[in-house]
Amino acid sequence: MAKDEDIYFMKEAIKEAGYAFQEDEVPVGCVIVKDKRIIARGHNQVELLQDSTAHAEMIALTAACEALKSKWLNDCTLYVTIEPCSMCAGAMVLARIKRLVFGCFDPKTGACGSVVNIIHNKKLNHRILITSGILKEDCKIILQEFFKGKRKK
Amino acid sequence: MAKDEDIYFMKEAIKEAGYAFQEDEVPVGCVIVKDKRIIARGHNQVELLQDSTAHAEMIALTAACEALKSKWLNDCTLYVTIEPCSMCAGAMVLARIKRLVFGCFDPKTGACGSVVNIIHNKKLNHRILITSGILKEDCKIILQEFFKGKRKK
Repeated sequence: MAKDEDIYFMKEAIKEAGYAFQEDEVPVGCVIVKDKRIIARGHNQVELLQDSTAHAEMIALTAACEALKSKWLNDCTLYVTIEPCSMCAGAMVLARIKRLVFGCFDPKTGACGSVVNIIHNKKLNHRILITSGILKEDCKIILQEFFKGKRKK
Repeated sequence: MAKDEDIYFMKEAIKEAGYAFQEDEVPVGCVIVKDKRIIARGHNQVELLQDSTAHAEMIALTAACEALKSKWLNDCTLYVTIEPCSMCAGAMVLARIKRLVFGCFDPKTGACGSVVNIIHNKKLNHRILITSGILKEDCKIILQEFFKGKRKK
């Protein structure tokens, strides 16, 4: 059963996804938590910045490094609404994130088991604890609504 | 045999690695080329920015998107001195880079065949042409010199 704490922070990540939705971006949101406090937030800004690297997680990771003045985020948990892609999963390993919590799986580009598994690759020098499926329906619905709207256009 | 053009641009990437070396960063450098012109450059700035995502390739990819005002870099070739990691390889797939040219392999974190292969994953929706080994000795020597210096400290 999901912990109240995980549900609370995933709701915050979903809020971030909502901001992306309002800005006509694929609605993915992320928060990074240390000692039960949110130290960084991010939502997808690929269209706004016309930068394919501007995923919610990358923005939040850079903000968290800035907040802690550290390239390593050892004691941090990253909450994101959908399974991270290879870029974002790779970035989390580099940043030595302690724990990753995500909502729904991404069968197309997910790099935490769906397409590849970057997070649990034995050859890489850091591994991350994973909890998946937290509020997965809410995380998925906002994406479905977004793409339904796109198809109508 | 390596094409003159690839050697020319790899030398430019090595110049970027040299700037990283001078700044006491792991010496990795990158240039992105379109229509035989360099449109973006980058070198590792992880220590300066205390940001584990600030790899040479990520910096150059964001700069190239900015230069072209486009999230996609379809007709671009990325030159980097060492085999990209999962984060950077994933970012290249997202940006739809056409061709990747790298110098030496990275047996510890390389994501273009060494540890994983993000670039040629059949499930991902874009694949990138790869040329490896261009000026690999020069690319390797600058890294060896850097780590030799570190061990002495």
